Amino acid sequence: MSLLGIDIGGTKMAMAILNDEGKILFSETVRWKEYDKLSVGDIIILRIKKILESQSFGDIISIGICVPGIYRMKSGTVWAPNIPGWDDYALLNEMKKVSGKIPVAIDSDRACYILGETWMGNTAGCKDAIYLAVGTGIGAGIITDGNVLRGSHDIAGAIGWMALQTPFQGKFISCGCFEENASGEGIAKTARIYLREDKSYSGELKNKSIESLSAHDVFAALKNNDDLALRVMEDMVQFWGMAAANLVSLFNPEKIIFGGGIFGPATPLIPKIKTEAAKWAQPISMMQVSFEASALDV
Amino acid sequence: MSLLGIDIGGTKMAMAILNDEGKILFSETVRWKEYDKLSVGDIIILRIKKILESQSFGDIISIGICVPGIYRMKSGTVWAPNIPGWDDYALLNEMKKVSGKIPVAIDSDRACYILGETWMGNTAGCKDAIYLAVGTGIGAGIITDGNVLRGSHDIAGAIGWMALQTPFQGKFISCGCFEENASGEGIAKTARIYLREDKSYSGELKNKSIESLSAHDVFAALKNNDDLALRVMEDMVQFWGMAAANLVSLFNPEKIIFGGGIFGPATPLIPKIKTEAAKWAQPISMMQVSFEASALDV
Repeated sequence: MSLLGIDIGGTKMAMAILNDEGKILFSETVRWKEYDKLSVGDIIILRIKKILESQSFGDIISIGICVPGIYRMKSGTVWAPNIPGWDDYALLNEMKKVSGKIPVAIDSDRACYILGETWMGNTAGCKDAIYLAVGTGIGAGIITDGNVLRGSHDIAGAIGWMALQTPFQGKFISCGCFEENASGEGIAKTARIYLREDKSYSGELKNKSIESLSAHDVFAALKNNDDLALRVMEDMVQFWGMAAANLVSLFNPEKIIFGGGIFGPATPLIPKIKTEAAKWAQPISMMQVSFEASALDV
Repeated sequence: MSLLGIDIGGTKMAMAILNDEGKILFSETVRWKEYDKLSVGDIIILRIKKILESQSFGDIISIGICVPGIYRMKSGTVWAPNIPGWDDYALLNEMKKVSGKIPVAIDSDRACYILGETWMGNTAGCKDAIYLAVGTGIGAGIITDGNVLRGSHDIAGAIGWMALQTPFQGKFISCGCFEENASGEGIAKTARIYLREDKSYSGELKNKSIESLSAHDVFAALKNNDDLALRVMEDMVQFWGMAAANLVSLFNPEKIIFGGGIFGPATPLIPKIKTEAAKWAQPISMMQVSFEASALDV
């Protein structure tokens, strides 16, 4: 008795067979470019069919699929901007062609983050918990009273658009105020601004090309207590703290989990983020919440 | 067959008997000071007993009670800072002493706002809707997938604490950034700041005592297109728009209802608030939401 989990991305998918305790029995990564004549949908069907036919890991009793975009629960369709043709792709119907009687669950990546954390990670047993995913972009997976928050059209949790700073600036148009300021790309942008402004700075980031500077570079400099990296991280702690505070005041959650590519290297900052959030949030709710790193990021 | 509704406040309660279509058959207001030897709990019991005994409006099949604070669903207790002794008052048990077999539902004021609006107002039929209540303070009643959002300890919706402005200022400590800036009291505070700063201003608010200036005064001046009142309202539209935008991005609701004492006079500003929100919010969610005034505020 086992489960099949599939994480679909823009360039590849990760597949795993797990037992009902969440232990990974088998995993593989499939890159779309390996199958250049097939559509992404066809590749997924092909690989699922192969796994179901092999029966190497006993009966697969359930299939779970994570998509990089929006899953429209009522229609069973997916919007995923990085996969050609997936504007309103009938993924559930396609999967049913190959899954037979095996139930198939599909959800957005941010819903899967918090569902995974609640099944096997740091929010196990929580009925009100939030996964704040900070990577190239920013999103939130939210569970309230034990259920994923979807909203009227399945796009709840778009926290990258959170307004945190007056007045409105044109640079917020493309991805939102919070994401512009405090995503992986926001870290790099902030460092570039400080590098251009601060003529007296002579630290290690001075030697980097401003244009190609990355969040990775900033975290590397932070390890050496570089002045400019420290200033950038002060800004990030403020924005992450404010956003987390707003989640605390609105949702009164048991836990907020910090995950995604940036947590990772920003994980040691979580206590500072909590101190910042405590300045802003509803004070009783703040005492009832725990801020933690994801247990599942690898 | 009728229903008994009770709205408990700091100085009084409003009671109404309604039919099952929501039509008010009878209503009365009871002021605590009329019963100076009795506790608030005892007064409520006394009045309910009297109504149940009179049987003037047929069988009462349900009792609903709205409390000015937090209702702790699991324990049936109330925290209401404006009612003496209601730190953790066992209201449900007290009510059961008099209600017999009639079911009693209790909830916080902000939950009741959105529940009322969903039963008899502008969010009828909505499964994802928010009531933003702006009065002396600011709170939000939130329904997601048809249920009131409570959070882990029944204090979700504390939107007055929303962080909307960097950096943190000491004045946010007592009631939160959004409420400090944009509640009824925030309107008055902002007007006072502008009156003190703007020495060239000679409009009608100049003649008011700065200390006792109220939101009511600002709205009165706004009717005459007073410069300073217009500036204050520009600030308010920005904060209300940003907060509404954050609700749109996080919850993807069908409707946001603007209510409370300030909407009211700020109702004509709702289109401007929507324009401001559209700058900040997740753009697809923004197209899916309607901003409306409460149908029930009187």
